[in-house]
Amino acid sequence: MRTNIKPRAGGPKTVATSPHSSPRETARVEAFSDGVFAIAITLLVLELRRPPVSEADNLAAALAAEWPSYLAFLTSFLIILVIWLNHHNLFALIHRSDRTFLLLNGMLLLVTSFVPFPTALVAEHLLGPGATVAMAVYSATGIGIALSFNAVWRYASRGRRLLALSVTDATVTSINRVYTVGPALYGIALVLAFVHPLSSFIYSMGLGVFFAVFATIGRDPAMGNGPAVDRKR
Amino acid sequence: MRTNIKPRAGGPKTVATSPHSSPRETARVEAFSDGVFAIAITLLVLELRRPPVSEADNLAAALAAEWPSYLAFLTSFLIILVIWLNHHNLFALIHRSDRTFLLLNGMLLLVTSFVPFPTALVAEHLLGPGATVAMAVYSATGIGIALSFNAVWRYASRGRRLLALSVTDATVTSINRVYTVGPALYGIALVLAFVHPLSSFIYSMGLGVFFAVFATIGRDPAMGNGPAVDRKR
Amino acid sequence: MRTNIKPRAGGPKTVATSPHSSPRETARVEAFSDGVFAIAITLLVLELRRPPVSEADNLAAALAAEWPSYLAFLTSFLIILVIWLNHHNLFALIHRSDRTFLLLNGMLLLVTSFVPFPTALVAEHLLGPGATVAMAVYSATGIGIALSFNAVWRYASRGRRLLALSVTDATVTSINRVYTVGPALYGIALVLAFVHPLSSFIYSMGLGVFFAVFATIGRDPAMGNGPAVDRKR
Amino acid sequence: MRTNIKPRAGGPKTVATSPHSSPRETARVEAFSDGVFAIAITLLVLELRRPPVSEADNLAAALAAEWPSYLAFLTSFLIILVIWLNHHNLFALIHRSDRTFLLLNGMLLLVTSFVPFPTALVAEHLLGPGATVAMAVYSATGIGIALSFNAVWRYASRGRRLLALSVTDATVTSINRVYTVGPALYGIALVLAFVHPLSSFIYSMGLGVFFAVFATIGRDPAMGNGPAVDRKR
Repeated sequence: MRTNIKPRAGGPKTVATSPHSSPRETARVEAFSDGVFAIAITLLVLELRRPPVSEADNLAAALAAEWPSYLAFLTSFLIILVIWLNHHNLFALIHRSDRTFLLLNGMLLLVTSFVPFPTALVAEHLLGPGATVAMAVYSATGIGIALSFNAVWRYASRGRRLLALSVTDATVTSINRVYTVGPALYGIALVLAFVHPLSSFIYSMGLGVFFAVFATIGRDPAMGNGPAVDRKR
Repeated sequence: MRTNIKPRAGGPKTVATSPHSSPRETARVEAFSDGVFAIAITLLVLELRRPPVSEADNLAAALAAEWPSYLAFLTSFLIILVIWLNHHNLFALIHRSDRTFLLLNGMLLLVTSFVPFPTALVAEHLLGPGATVAMAVYSATGIGIALSFNAVWRYASRGRRLLALSVTDATVTSINRVYTVGPALYGIALVLAFVHPLSSFIYSMGLGVFFAVFATIGRDPAMGNGPAVDRKR
Repeated sequence: MRTNIKPRAGGPKTVATSPHSSPRETARVEAFSDGVFAIAITLLVLELRRPPVSEADNLAAALAAEWPSYLAFLTSFLIILVIWLNHHNLFALIHRSDRTFLLLNGMLLLVTSFVPFPTALVAEHLLGPGATVAMAVYSATGIGIALSFNAVWRYASRGRRLLALSVTDATVTSINRVYTVGPALYGIALVLAFVHPLSSFIYSMGLGVFFAVFATIGRDPAMGNGPAVDRKR
Repeated sequence: MRTNIKPRAGGPKTVATSPHSSPRETARVEAFSDGVFAIAITLLVLELRRPPVSEADNLAAALAAEWPSYLAFLTSFLIILVIWLNHHNLFALIHRSDRTFLLLNGMLLLVTSFVPFPTALVAEHLLGPGATVAMAVYSATGIGIALSFNAVWRYASRGRRLLALSVTDATVTSINRVYTVGPALYGIALVLAFVHPLSSFIYSMGLGVFFAVFATIGRDPAMGNGPAVDRKR
């Protein structure tokens, strides 16, 4: 019997139901994941292309010519930021952990830490003959991210395996629906890569902005609804 | 009424008012932001220019010739340190979060993670024909930082949307005033970049030192007023 | 007598057994170690080899030719992920710390932070005349990791020096047994490096997958066995 | 009124004296500093020199020829690890913070984040004509670290400005004494750099090992003295 979640009669209920004294098995997973996200998002800058010093005479033009590099940086930054937002939101619903879950989360971290590589590919090849391949790799990485999120969420939510008690079935259904769409959205970018790479890139940027501004997995229950303790009642 | 702060009669009061059960919705945002700041500030060293091994015979002179690289490193370090200090101070006032706020904070992280790029530009071009462009990009980044801080703060403080109850109106007004000046101060650096790039650089260094030593957003309520225990009374 | 774990009669028992007031001397060590693990695992991407821009005409083939780089990235990612998982599991059993322990843990961090170097060596040399040496360095790093874990664990568990009270002798014995095997498993990779480097690499990959999926140091007592509060009773 | 700090009579006092509810104003400073230390220590690997692929025929010899690179990596790793250990120990004594303190701590972070640069210099120049200059820069960085620690500690401890109540005067005196020696020890390395650079390097390595193994600032009160709760009584 899990007495900590159903507080015993007469027990100090506030402790058992407050978010901070409730068992947060996932705290260290979150911290580690946040570390990887923070590093991956900050490493992107290292792939920004600087013009060779020999072009100093016309540095403005030389910098402007590197615009694919800046746009790729921006898009990838948005993508990793959205990964973090979603991860953050998911872990407000997931309160337990097991080894399989850690591995699936590790798969998500793997794909996220890989993002600077396709970003640099796109920065280098968007305007050249390698554009299709570069955008294909970039889109495939996006698909990998979406699939990893699906794996993490579906494993955690199947039979409410790792979910907090407070998560409603409606929330689970709603997230399932949104997550089903994710891989398909990046799949369109992959198809576009073979048709018109630049369009695929613009589409990917739009996707990043869209996810950042609109896509949410329901209202985030860990934020914005007033103080944590009140929320739980 | 914030019943989580005033514990209900009969409940285990001390627990409910302890720092761990107090509502800190922003904890993970702060941790993620701190990660990005810490990484960006430490990545700066990777852009420090080392003389080619062929100049080993006169390494001291070769190193000395790279002085713009060291000064740019120092200035950017100060700037990111000040970003962290200010962020730290702001989040002592901001106790709630929502998606828009996270996005605005993400914009601040974007500009901060970009800092190593203009730093390297300045290190490479300060003494050459690209100095004006390099300093213009550098100053524009500073303006971006100042504007991002304004966006974060004004969104959080409008109608006291995300502020802690304990924040006084005087504090809000005082921060508003200081933050209005920020973009203008970096704007001067931008103008100077087109007049005399080296002066713009020296001015930016001075700005970094000034912010680090003097500028505060009011007295930081989370620090420096004696122990937390005393502060709360 | 350790009164903090066995709460005194009449004392506020729930508080004493809650995860937040339990003594966690190792919190900052864990956080620092997690930082190093997160950075090392994310830095791996910087060693991924991108084809020179001159090969843009046939980017797909040029990328495919770098497959050792991707496999080395994948294997090293798995290895560091497993390091993190094991570290995480160990620190669920270790509740105290001293300077010697910190140094041994530092040795583990040293070897972990070194992983990107042999990974890049393997990526560069797996298909060339340097394959044996590259795989030897790679395997030796694996042995170093296994030995460091042994040092950390054996120091902490000898006479239950730094263990939590709740750790059973059976757990200690079981971990001892598993950890004895570790260096030998990487030792096989080292021998294979001199016989057939590619086989050594495939074996190392298999080892990474095996550890990630199967190897556990007993069931992780900090996760998946029900809530933290129950554990302490 | 915030009753949570001065526990009311009859309240569960254990909470008020437990390490988690004690005022820890310095938590975010420590976390940020740990981030910088973790990143700086892990970035060192990026400066490790790999032989050019053209030397693959004799990779073992080519790797062996880079021994200064590995020893510099090792020494700098030890130095940053010791910085972390000392920082950790200091912050067990320091429980408050103010802006000046944050700036002095920032100075320490600046020098620490700089360490990969002189490390790479030494790796490149130890065996060539630039050895004296490289070791001079390396030693000067060590002096900078020692001076920064002195500044942090002396500011915090003057008149017990930021110290925890539990710190004894004997501890303060003892740390003062040890810290006075630090800059002088690295000063010897600086002098040696001009006499015999290789000896200066060996001396620096010895210093790193010595600090890691022996030097402590008294017994760390946050660790190894039994459980946190007992300590506070």
